Amino acid sequence: MSDDLRIKALEAHRRYYGKIEVIPKVPIKRLSDFSIWYTPGVAELARYISKMGPDESFNLTYRWNSVAVVSDGSRVLGLGNIGPEAALPVMEGKALLFKYLGGVDAIPIVLRVNNAEEFISIVKALEPSFGGINLEDIESPKCFYILDRLRNELNIPVWHDDQQGTAMVVLAALINAFKIVDKELRRSRIVLVGLGAANYSVLRYLEVYGVDLGNVIVVERPGIGILSRCHPMLDSFKKSMPHWYDAALKTNRDCLEGGIPEALKGADAVIAASRPGPDIIKGEWIRLMADKPIVFALANPVPEILPEVAIKYGAEIVATGRSDYPNQVNNSLGFPAVFRGVLTVRARKITDSMCIEGAKALARYAEKRGLRRDYIIPKMSEVEAYIEVAFSIAKKAINDGIARRRLSDDELKREIRVLIERPRKIVNVMMKSGLIKE
Amino acid sequence: MSDDLRIKALEAHRRYYGKIEVIPKVPIKRLSDFSIWYTPGVAELARYISKMGPDESFNLTYRWNSVAVVSDGSRVLGLGNIGPEAALPVMEGKALLFKYLGGVDAIPIVLRVNNAEEFISIVKALEPSFGGINLEDIESPKCFYILDRLRNELNIPVWHDDQQGTAMVVLAALINAFKIVDKELRRSRIVLVGLGAANYSVLRYLEVYGVDLGNVIVVERPGIGILSRCHPMLDSFKKSMPHWYDAALKTNRDCLEGGIPEALKGADAVIAASRPGPDIIKGEWIRLMADKPIVFALANPVPEILPEVAIKYGAEIVATGRSDYPNQVNNSLGFPAVFRGVLTVRARKITDSMCIEGAKALARYAEKRGLRRDYIIPKMSEVEAYIEVAFSIAKKAINDGIARRRLSDDELKREIRVLIERPRKIVNVMMKSGLIKE
Repeated sequence: MSDDLRIKALEAHRRYYGKIEVIPKVPIKRLSDFSIWYTPGVAELARYISKMGPDESFNLTYRWNSVAVVSDGSRVLGLGNIGPEAALPVMEGKALLFKYLGGVDAIPIVLRVNNAEEFISIVKALEPSFGGINLEDIESPKCFYILDRLRNELNIPVWHDDQQGTAMVVLAALINAFKIVDKELRRSRIVLVGLGAANYSVLRYLEVYGVDLGNVIVVERPGIGILSRCHPMLDSFKKSMPHWYDAALKTNRDCLEGGIPEALKGADAVIAASRPGPDIIKGEWIRLMADKPIVFALANPVPEILPEVAIKYGAEIVATGRSDYPNQVNNSLGFPAVFRGVLTVRARKITDSMCIEGAKALARYAEKRGLRRDYIIPKMSEVEAYIEVAFSIAKKAINDGIARRRLSDDELKREIRVLIERPRKIVNVMMKSGLIKE
Repeated sequence: MSDDLRIKALEAHRRYYGKIEVIPKVPIKRLSDFSIWYTPGVAELARYISKMGPDESFNLTYRWNSVAVVSDGSRVLGLGNIGPEAALPVMEGKALLFKYLGGVDAIPIVLRVNNAEEFISIVKALEPSFGGINLEDIESPKCFYILDRLRNELNIPVWHDDQQGTAMVVLAALINAFKIVDKELRRSRIVLVGLGAANYSVLRYLEVYGVDLGNVIVVERPGIGILSRCHPMLDSFKKSMPHWYDAALKTNRDCLEGGIPEALKGADAVIAASRPGPDIIKGEWIRLMADKPIVFALANPVPEILPEVAIKYGAEIVATGRSDYPNQVNNSLGFPAVFRGVLTVRARKITDSMCIEGAKALARYAEKRGLRRDYIIPKMSEVEAYIEVAFSIAKKAINDGIARRRLSDDELKREIRVLIERPRKIVNVMMKSGLIKE
């Protein structure tokens, strides 16, 4: 990040004192209107929900559209465990994106907790307040356990953006990359470099998508290398790194050994989500890959291999996490649309197959616009992509019987469009009236 | 509540799907602005807070202006323990008032918890997310313990509106009532009928204000009667009703016995906050009181004695909780201004003496406008009253050294005014532009 951007970011936040606010969305013309919005009128709503059951809270409060963006600050961006207060500006930024891109009312919640059990019990206690939970910036492997528990134990959608969010966008980009190189993704050789929150979820999605995991190779850091059921440290993974253990059992049928270059030999695609580069993956190793290699180097701020290097050594398609290169694998393409979808139909869960539907819809949108080596995935500015992804996820929730609310396709699309377009209108009106100053 | 109002309230909430939303308060003109508001820019804020200390989160996020409105749904309005989901519309209504009247960003948080310890540990974990905590609709005596613990253990202001909020407005009204009847409040005979959340806090404020508690009489329900250190059940109060025990030791120096009529004999004022009337206090009992009796009958929806009855039997000044009678003792006169004050100066606490200052400022405002039997306290429509109360509380926090931020009187007044006037402008602009439909 440039010094200029650093200073600008600090100054902008100091000037505006943060970036979100909570406002009324109902007409208030005189104070007597509060007899409807507050006492005594509101007592009737409380009585009604207590009589008809807790699900009525989705119809009578803002809960249906609200998401808690929850972190303990244990792994914030690239900064490590910096604590809840330091994580707050990040969660508030996420809340801003939730609204601006997805029309979702998101609340930043940073928790001072000591362990996974405390985290879980607090989010469980918070469930009645929200329509969904977005977990964020939690260290691994703790984050896997927290997500699994909360997905099982809550009756609202739970999402860990560093897992499902990244994986969904990666899968969309991968589907299109394979179309361009004209290979069959399901029967391909794929290498994952680094098995943290993102790639462990990528692995799970590949499995649900139908990829033969026996043919997938996972490489971890130096000293660990390629995972497999034959790995000498397999037993020690079982307790300390259960996600490595799980991947070791499922992938690498042939017990291939070694490091990144050994893994890349003959591979169709590599997906690196490990640590900031460059040169985690060396240029010459790309030459070891199969014909028309696909290279996703997703570390921020510097990819594991720079795109210009990868291309020089023969990569056909390159994607990164950066906005200043083509093919940005950007979480912001995912979570706003996913939650727009599940919230609109009051879904009880976000299942992996709903995410796969979302990835396919995202891929389809780019395909309709015309795939190119430097356009395998939509850009953040393509509002229609959000609407289509939200629709496909909502539709899947209805079809799988986990939606509290059923709508026709037309109603669904119309509602989603109105909700996604509204926040841009609000920001424009507020800027024009001077209530947001430039 | 009329059937008409019930239906209207349900329909209005169904139509608008709740009543608050979260919006950006910063300019967004193009998606590249997110490099400031989100990644990579936001990483600099996280780093800065982690380096400079957690208090920097007040300067760089919306935390400085945010309040969690927290309930477990254990005593919602007059409806009892109806659970968190049923409490949500009430908390959302409170959030609406917080913004509209005080310019405060309030978040409704309803908790599914089993006991006071769980409640306390969750709010403690939530502390880094908010600038203040407003507790609401929690059953007594649990609410006293929760408030005491959280006030001691958190470094942000904690307020239980059913305790301090009611008591502050009662004290303001009482100060002015005594001015009208030209008696000295500090040396008067005051009777409290009912010792729940509200009146226990009234008792504490009377003490801090300088009233001689030996001369105050507290009457509880039939079977308990007048409290004192001589009460035959004193020992049993100690464990089950510690606030009764406390009051029994402090009040009623002369060990007066009996029920409400015995308590009222010769009293200058009665403050009833017990259970819905009418006829908890009988008209003829008012005749037992001293010259020019002051009668506050605060139960909702029906006061302990109807104002017309109290006046018929000689009451000089009558106040209730109802908006359709003069002299409404209305919590909404308190909490928005109190939090406007403490949040503006980033106070670490709300002390009892700050609340007394607030009560005095509220009383002063009505006095300046001209006291009458039917105007002892400002109305919700008097915006200037909010500004003055907020100012006096903020000022007291600065003077007592518990503010994180010091401002001159002029700066303080100007900031408070801007923040209190802003939400009305927002609602107007949103209504005019059709983003809030009528």
